[in-house]
Amino acid sequence: MAYYIGVDIGGTNLKAGVVDRAGNIISEASVPTGADRPQDIVLQDILGAVKTSIENSKVDSKEIRAVGLGSPGAIDTENGIVIRNYNLGWKDFHICEKMTEALGIPAKLANDADAAALGEVIAGSAKGAKNALIITLGTGVGSGVVINEKILPGEFGHMVIAYNGRPCTCGRKGCFEAYSSATGLINMTKEAIERDPGGILAEVAKTEGAVSGLTVFTAADKGDKEAEKVIDEYLEYLACGIANLINGLQPEVVSLGGGIAKQGERLLAPLRVKVEREAFKGLKMPRIVSCTLGYKAGLIGAAMVVRDL
Amino acid sequence: MAYYIGVDIGGTNLKAGVVDRAGNIISEASVPTGADRPQDIVLQDILGAVKTSIENSKVDSKEIRAVGLGSPGAIDTENGIVIRNYNLGWKDFHICEKMTEALGIPAKLANDADAAALGEVIAGSAKGAKNALIITLGTGVGSGVVINEKILPGEFGHMVIAYNGRPCTCGRKGCFEAYSSATGLINMTKEAIERDPGGILAEVAKTEGAVSGLTVFTAADKGDKEAEKVIDEYLEYLACGIANLINGLQPEVVSLGGGIAKQGERLLAPLRVKVEREAFKGLKMPRIVSCTLGYKAGLIGAAMVVRDL
Repeated sequence: MAYYIGVDIGGTNLKAGVVDRAGNIISEASVPTGADRPQDIVLQDILGAVKTSIENSKVDSKEIRAVGLGSPGAIDTENGIVIRNYNLGWKDFHICEKMTEALGIPAKLANDADAAALGEVIAGSAKGAKNALIITLGTGVGSGVVINEKILPGEFGHMVIAYNGRPCTCGRKGCFEAYSSATGLINMTKEAIERDPGGILAEVAKTEGAVSGLTVFTAADKGDKEAEKVIDEYLEYLACGIANLINGLQPEVVSLGGGIAKQGERLLAPLRVKVEREAFKGLKMPRIVSCTLGYKAGLIGAAMVVRDL
Repeated sequence: MAYYIGVDIGGTNLKAGVVDRAGNIISEASVPTGADRPQDIVLQDILGAVKTSIENSKVDSKEIRAVGLGSPGAIDTENGIVIRNYNLGWKDFHICEKMTEALGIPAKLANDADAAALGEVIAGSAKGAKNALIITLGTGVGSGVVINEKILPGEFGHMVIAYNGRPCTCGRKGCFEAYSSATGLINMTKEAIERDPGGILAEVAKTEGAVSGLTVFTAADKGDKEAEKVIDEYLEYLACGIANLINGLQPEVVSLGGGIAKQGERLLAPLRVKVEREAFKGLKMPRIVSCTLGYKAGLIGAAMVVRDL
């Protein structure tokens, strides 16, 4: 049997795991990431987690073929270098070279969102899809496109859908991310509260102490019509961005992950109606579903990046 | 040597050619398309053009491995069927089956814009690019994405860039096509004339008899500031759509074809500045160039679709 190591470099934890060819996690280990530490110390921690996961897996280390790493930030996948990771304070970290030196097996680096998308395609919500689009609705909007089990480079979170619209962190105006991220939903919620400071939405926000991506759903549960309007507006923009990508990439499956996607069918059912109205007529509509692997997607996907090295 | 037949099903002419592995046309033949004729009659015309091109090529027909067809309209590439071509009045035309029956070689169907994109990658403006984006600025906006010499399905002309913006033929509002096609430019020109009916732009349009995609460039040549503003506005939208696709697909080359692209550097030079301002910082900027093969792209590309069958 052939096994692969997956490493997920998260802002909070470094996770490592032994994964089989089908994308099953045999064992995993985790250590706190600890930002702003020397890169070589972090490397020792990653190697420690890798070794623990190998030991726990009871897999003969000769059967472990390669190690795949999923990292955020600016990365050079060809040369296996984390060019810059502002959150962790990394710069020009030749992580693949170091991993190969220490473990004696090939190493490959991928963008963390792309790795998670590959995980969902191989072992999760988009299993078996020849052409899948994974969209993460978190602080930002992440996109991962996987065709024939290969990751397509690129990021559609910074696709402008509203020319001259809401400012985005990237410097553009009107990006998909500026509307469809949790941050976008929070902004829409705050604006609704400003318009109606005595309403249910304002009251819920006050009780919760701050506006979150959940506030508007809690208020809608209490029968607030204004909250329903915010959700509808949010879904219109989300459907617009997703329809763009369905027209452009014709995926068989669109999987939604991240905090907002936890709303499940409450979000997905009206979203499907809006997307179908927006997408190119005559096109076979993809399945629109929730991601199923959670944090494991990144670990599995990182391992799957090196499955066919 | 191995050779391939390319067939380009155009609205005006049906073109066939013998193409070598490198994408060189050895010979070609053309017959008028003639809309609304029985499909089997059209098939005979296509076969006639194919046979003429084979005869003229002096290639031994045994060396001809396969035939690739580029077609507009709704097509089923997997089964080789033109499902619907409104311009030609075709419906459920099992063209690949018929071609194979008649010629005794495998046949494959591709979208015409995708075939042209592949032609530009193999033998034209994007030669050698691992990842290229070809955008046609014609009556509509066509996009073709070619990665590792394989066509990616999908069409980004109907990507909304201006939420709730100009109505598009597809039924959506604010599509890339509604702004960046020749039609989009003509609409912007007409609006500028309405705003200033006594200006140079209005005068040029009157002399030309109608507003075309060229009108605004002719007026700008005469020193019209209003025309310059229209060109600038047009370029802003075009840059917006192109930057979206650079962020999303990270192509090495972006090639522009179609009528408007004939403006060459006059269009490309300011476009590059705007695109670089819009695209994700830190990303390696692609070359932005004009397509070089003209109508031959479709013929070459159709043949190249079957090069590695």
